[in-house]
Amino acid sequence: MADQGKYVEKSYQRDTRYIPTRITADGRDGFPVEAGRYRLAVSRACPWAHRTIIVRRLLGLEPVLSMAVAGPTHDADSWTFDLDPGGVDPVLGIPRLKDAYEARPDGYKPGVTVPAIVDTTTGQVVTNNFPQITLDFSTQWSQFHREGAPDLYPEALRAEIDEVAELVYRDVNNGVYRCGFAGEQESYEQAYDRLFSRLDWLSERLAGQRYLVGDTITEADIRLFTTLVRFDAVYHGHFKCNRSKLSEMPVLWGYARDLFQTPGFGDTVNFDHIKSHYYEVHLDINPTGIVPKGPDPSGWLSDHGREALGGSPFGAGTAPGPVAAGEEVPSL
Amino acid sequence: MADQGKYVEKSYQRDTRYIPTRITADGRDGFPVEAGRYRLAVSRACPWAHRTIIVRRLLGLEPVLSMAVAGPTHDADSWTFDLDPGGVDPVLGIPRLKDAYEARPDGYKPGVTVPAIVDTTTGQVVTNNFPQITLDFSTQWSQFHREGAPDLYPEALRAEIDEVAELVYRDVNNGVYRCGFAGEQESYEQAYDRLFSRLDWLSERLAGQRYLVGDTITEADIRLFTTLVRFDAVYHGHFKCNRSKLSEMPVLWGYARDLFQTPGFGDTVNFDHIKSHYYEVHLDINPTGIVPKGPDPSGWLSDHGREALGGSPFGAGTAPGPVAAGEEVPSL
Repeated sequence: MADQGKYVEKSYQRDTRYIPTRITADGRDGFPVEAGRYRLAVSRACPWAHRTIIVRRLLGLEPVLSMAVAGPTHDADSWTFDLDPGGVDPVLGIPRLKDAYEARPDGYKPGVTVPAIVDTTTGQVVTNNFPQITLDFSTQWSQFHREGAPDLYPEALRAEIDEVAELVYRDVNNGVYRCGFAGEQESYEQAYDRLFSRLDWLSERLAGQRYLVGDTITEADIRLFTTLVRFDAVYHGHFKCNRSKLSEMPVLWGYARDLFQTPGFGDTVNFDHIKSHYYEVHLDINPTGIVPKGPDPSGWLSDHGREALGGSPFGAGTAPGPVAAGEEVPSL
Repeated sequence: MADQGKYVEKSYQRDTRYIPTRITADGRDGFPVEAGRYRLAVSRACPWAHRTIIVRRLLGLEPVLSMAVAGPTHDADSWTFDLDPGGVDPVLGIPRLKDAYEARPDGYKPGVTVPAIVDTTTGQVVTNNFPQITLDFSTQWSQFHREGAPDLYPEALRAEIDEVAELVYRDVNNGVYRCGFAGEQESYEQAYDRLFSRLDWLSERLAGQRYLVGDTITEADIRLFTTLVRFDAVYHGHFKCNRSKLSEMPVLWGYARDLFQTPGFGDTVNFDHIKSHYYEVHLDINPTGIVPKGPDPSGWLSDHGREALGGSPFGAGTAPGPVAAGEEVPSL
């Protein structure tokens, strides 16, 4: 998403008025799951959009749900399709994602965020409600899942996944933003304490088990991963989350590398886009716009030894095949 | 010093027009070494002033050269004595160091920097030429050195010390500022590359020898230490020197901890002052003024194993005694 939000007594409050419309198997909101009808708009910089990129790939939805990748930086108004020839998304035919938001009859105002799913038949954004989008990929798009697609949101574990995900959202996914966008020292320190307490709690939980919930990868792992993979590159310095680097937290570092090296995770990460976005767009906290050259990301490929904990990444399913043509990211 | 400097083609150039007057044994510039006449003005935040604090203590000059400690933050104009009762230095009787600069008849303009030595008989700054001040402590103030004072600038090694110190100054001491105050990406990256190349060079040099030059602590070690001790607390994040933390460079981390744990080094470090200064004063690169809570400094006290390399910190001399009353810093 764009980092929409506001300050309430100098602590950062994310604006969570997303468009609640859902694309479902039964089409109850007027938007039935259909092959080829929708386009997922993302930026590889954005952790919230990153969830959708991973889940789409793990479930094999690429052939039925195309993807528009916005550039890492956006202007005050909108994410833009500046990576595409002529600066226009080839399917939607628009230069700015804002155009698909403005095409909506309701004049949705809170902000131009990714991920957003656009109905290509109208050019209108259907939803940008990111916490629901990935769950709907798992539960509503099942007729289009690839053979061997893992169950990322198994019914028997949903309550536990939701519970962990809520804590991770509050203290980690959004917690890093509450550190970085704090308007004064006290709210920063509160966010910092909650962030690192939660990371300690996660380290303890993950010391003896390979994944967050159950013994396979679930939605909970995906949601944690997208923050962890940005931690040393951005949050540690830019957002002042600097009790320690991820690479100095052995359990979480092993866990994050294990996921990174699993098909569908590291092969969706573009560190250049990530660093460029945060450091070039947030000129309120980085006025020079200079992008740090470090850290060296090659450590992500080092041995993690987490296989010894048992579990299996995709359970009864299989790993996804190669990245779809045209969706490759630079290798480390 | 205050971070006086300017931008030349968007790279940071330190203004080095310091007051060249020297306080010498023979008084050739009109300022003979004398017990009780001069007052050393410092801030514990400033790496350039920090050199003088360490050397003064190692040589035992406290009884003859008193010290005025300015607070960690300064306004646009001057370092201030806001730590003292009533905000006035009890010896100089002034609230701002600028007053002692303005008392000079020549109207010295480049900036109000620490370290500065003030002649208490006139209230005027005599010199702020930091690279010379510590050398003069070693060579000109010898009649007042404590018993067992080490030789920090041994004649036989001066050429080598000067050579190493010059490289360390250019690429490391001043190099971190060239990273942090770079006006654009290219000059930042050049400074970053030079900094980390030099740190690699220093790591190689220090892998097999305990100190930089010879087998005892010299001026060269003091000059490197004051930058290393600020590295993870400030330069890594605030100045974007983030290829790695000091604690991730094993040789330099061991070397820096060895010095930190040597009397005269760690007992002069105030991490709160250091962090407060950089993050609260440089609002051009940290507009919120928020001071990061991390990193945890307790690692500075961990075992370093450098004794195995031989050498002895003070050679034929001895360690300094306890910190002078009133000059203590908070312990880690």
